[in-house]
Amino acid sequence: MEFHFLGTGSGVPSTSRNVSGLVVRFLQKKSTQWLFDCGEATQHQILQSPITLTKIDRIFISHLHGDHLFGLPGLLCSRSAQGAKTTLTIYGPIGVKEYVETSLKISQSYLSYDLHFVDIQEGEVYSDESITIECLSLDHVMPSFAFKLTESNQPGSLNVEKLKGLGIEPGPIYQKIKQKEQITLADGRIIHGSDFVNEDKKGRVVIIGGDTRPLEKMIDFAKSANLLIHEGTFLSDKKTHADQFGHSTIADIALLAKKAHVGNLILTHISSRYAGEEKALEEEAQLIFSSSMIAYDFMVYKLVNNA
Amino acid sequence: MEFHFLGTGSGVPSTSRNVSGLVVRFLQKKSTQWLFDCGEATQHQILQSPITLTKIDRIFISHLHGDHLFGLPGLLCSRSAQGAKTTLTIYGPIGVKEYVETSLKISQSYLSYDLHFVDIQEGEVYSDESITIECLSLDHVMPSFAFKLTESNQPGSLNVEKLKGLGIEPGPIYQKIKQKEQITLADGRIIHGSDFVNEDKKGRVVIIGGDTRPLEKMIDFAKSANLLIHEGTFLSDKKTHADQFGHSTIADIALLAKKAHVGNLILTHISSRYAGEEKALEEEAQLIFSSSMIAYDFMVYKLVNNA
Repeated sequence: MEFHFLGTGSGVPSTSRNVSGLVVRFLQKKSTQWLFDCGEATQHQILQSPITLTKIDRIFISHLHGDHLFGLPGLLCSRSAQGAKTTLTIYGPIGVKEYVETSLKISQSYLSYDLHFVDIQEGEVYSDESITIECLSLDHVMPSFAFKLTESNQPGSLNVEKLKGLGIEPGPIYQKIKQKEQITLADGRIIHGSDFVNEDKKGRVVIIGGDTRPLEKMIDFAKSANLLIHEGTFLSDKKTHADQFGHSTIADIALLAKKAHVGNLILTHISSRYAGEEKALEEEAQLIFSSSMIAYDFMVYKLVNNA
Repeated sequence: MEFHFLGTGSGVPSTSRNVSGLVVRFLQKKSTQWLFDCGEATQHQILQSPITLTKIDRIFISHLHGDHLFGLPGLLCSRSAQGAKTTLTIYGPIGVKEYVETSLKISQSYLSYDLHFVDIQEGEVYSDESITIECLSLDHVMPSFAFKLTESNQPGSLNVEKLKGLGIEPGPIYQKIKQKEQITLADGRIIHGSDFVNEDKKGRVVIIGGDTRPLEKMIDFAKSANLLIHEGTFLSDKKTHADQFGHSTIADIALLAKKAHVGNLILTHISSRYAGEEKALEEEAQLIFSSSMIAYDFMVYKLVNNA
């Protein structure tokens, strides 16, 4: 999985950070690119990135504030102008459909592809053979959700060394062993496939948060996740302010990441007041949780495979 | 008057041209800045320009296609975030109010200032002591309008030389002369103020067009205008294509400018297919009407005063 941070600012765009937009590229399935939140000018950011707009076929909206939403109509129209034919599905809180449909109606925009909407609520919102997405309801000034991406476990690999050591050479029999069948060999020996298959490779878990005050239940939701991407709009000296507007401080989330034992923490949705002060943000985070970093526009983060 | 071209492309943004947005700064009244059309990321372009968002108090929308409209909700919200208090009035075809109000409602955005809407139709849409704005209905694939800005004439200046030549020295009497009164001087001479006041300074006229096929009645509307800003989406070899999508070619509009005897022509709304070919566009225009230029993003055009 590759994470392309297109917009890492909060509220309003600045010259250094655009409003929210994050594309996840699934490297195993090269054509799959999903967008999380779509602030204004997300399509402009895509133009300056390696992302291909026509390949985005699912968009997840965490909540309906303009800095996470207002880029949708333009992006949908440009995807159409580029000739996209594949269905696009938008997952978001109730209201996203009315917003998009009104925008398209008023602007008399007709799309070259089918558009579907899925209202999200707490629990599973998407699942296929390789990934599941669950939502957690957050604590913002309007309904807001975090997304948990859980990769399916991959069947363990064959322990070829061990098989060869017993004189069992590659052939159709390896397939049966991989399926953990009990097999009688030509020489009468009986083997159990499960003895020759390594443990399942555990799927990776990534949390992509929405705007929220720090939330106790996030610790469970994010427990042992490989990666937690979370807002950290303010430094901790702005705690009261953060709370008033339904946001978190960097320190809040670094502590949460520590308690949840996540692999890495990426903080985003940074207030424009900190332009040029990224070092201070990073320090506040790393003092509490060393595997923290502050996102910046066009940052690409590659999540390594589980061992 | 100063014209700030924020977006000079058509349909979809490209890396070189954003979608439509043009700010007019009235230099005599420093705080007055009006926006014409508001494609997505117009507020981002403003961030990179000398324009002050909070000072924009009137927005004119030529038509409701997304590339002229989708920047509105974000721009309105950012104007609020910057603490603007002055009323903002949006002039546009029926539909702009529904679009904006739905966007603000769904995103739960509350503005720090009053927002008014004025539905436009052919004829006068705005007038104050210094300027009048009229609309002309165009020929696009949806209702579309051009705007004609006509400055009020300025009263002529006093011919002080002539007055001094007759021994009439500055004093309260000059005010009466300027008002073209008949005056009896202390020495019994009778003078007529109108003999000492230069001709009225004619107000300047500027046309800001919307998307349209070339239109015969535009020749009258733009007659002798100091400046015509008009779309010229395609080169003339794409005439059939332009016509199909309700657009003009560069040559169409250069010819129109010539027939209307305008002072200068600025062509904008350039298709992204011509990136890097600006010379060819300019040549097509100037071959027909020499005082033509092709707009580019962040171009600033200062309209000189009438002589």
